[in-house]
Amino acid sequence: MLTLHHNPFAISAVAAIVLEELELDYTPVLVDFRVTAQQAPAYLALNPKGRVPTLETPSGVLTETGAILDYLAAVHGPHLVPDDAFQAARMRETMYYLAATLHVNYAHALRGARWADAEASWADMTAKAPHTMAASLAYLEGHLDFAPFAIGSSLTLADPWLFVLTGFATRLHIDLAQFPNLSAHQVLMNDRYAVRAARTKGMMA
Amino acid sequence: MLTLHHNPFAISAVAAIVLEELELDYTPVLVDFRVTAQQAPAYLALNPKGRVPTLETPSGVLTETGAILDYLAAVHGPHLVPDDAFQAARMRETMYYLAATLHVNYAHALRGARWADAEASWADMTAKAPHTMAASLAYLEGHLDFAPFAIGSSLTLADPWLFVLTGFATRLHIDLAQFPNLSAHQVLMNDRYAVRAARTKGMMA
Repeated sequence: MLTLHHNPFAISAVAAIVLEELELDYTPVLVDFRVTAQQAPAYLALNPKGRVPTLETPSGVLTETGAILDYLAAVHGPHLVPDDAFQAARMRETMYYLAATLHVNYAHALRGARWADAEASWADMTAKAPHTMAASLAYLEGHLDFAPFAIGSSLTLADPWLFVLTGFATRLHIDLAQFPNLSAHQVLMNDRYAVRAARTKGMMA
Repeated sequence: MLTLHHNPFAISAVAAIVLEELELDYTPVLVDFRVTAQQAPAYLALNPKGRVPTLETPSGVLTETGAILDYLAAVHGPHLVPDDAFQAARMRETMYYLAATLHVNYAHALRGARWADAEASWADMTAKAPHTMAASLAYLEGHLDFAPFAIGSSLTLADPWLFVLTGFATRLHIDLAQFPNLSAHQVLMNDRYAVRAARTKGMMA
């Protein structure tokens, strides 16, 4: 049995979409940020980082979107990772960039307190975040295949992640029309059954 | 043929150690930050992100430490990834945490200009970075196996990365003695042939 601890406004939507793509049974557990449920002792016992997603698997607990996705593919859906080692590496190159650069740039809009203590610093970060996030999106716009998926002609683990994070850009009032490839990818993903299912189940805002 | 574009003070040392662990032939190319070589047009043509590492492979160019490591293991050394899917996922959980949390916390000590524009904001980030980095190290200290490697009894891709980034902590005057498991891991890794070879070749400061 799989249990996904998630919040529909957070990056945990990516894991939910992959669970839906693989048509797996799973139990969703809402981590309600409005009552700081991510810091409740029972949750911290599962995930000391106090973040989502957390996936309970038959083998134990996993955190980090990239690790959860690669695990789900390895056990339940190897077709979500390219057979070719170089194309698989390009997929992971995209995944690491999304995790460590694009999402980090986005997080500075809202989570400056992670990295600085003064309100003026937070305001500075909030003001700059739309620019750094747009620069990251411009890099992806020019670098990925969009053929029509991020890496080639089949959906891989990179696609749901790219879809969710690109969607976050609109929260920073970034106009996605300037990125036609990413915009087309948004439409393509938005119409997938798995994304509709994740939304219907409340896994994605 | 493999060509690694690197700087001995940067995270590219991780890829160099893995190349040495696998005893692969590779050509190192120094990206000299003192002359901003990472922004030279020829380098940006290879890696538009202007960062290291960049690995040229027979199939094309790869960036992002995590993608390069997984590629090298897939093609040349599958023993560096646990056979068990859950243990492999724990390895990648560690790798994503190193890339997207620990390294990001460290980067705020020196690279505040990525995320804010005011000098006061950079000073704020620099002051906080030793605390956020120490908190990340404390999490890893309590979470990993250290048996004696990060994930179990064999070296995996997570180990060289953990080794190099933990070493960076001393640049922020963090006393590693408070983390006995990480300290023992530093000693274990420091005495490996691959680490000595990487240092001898100027791949690691």
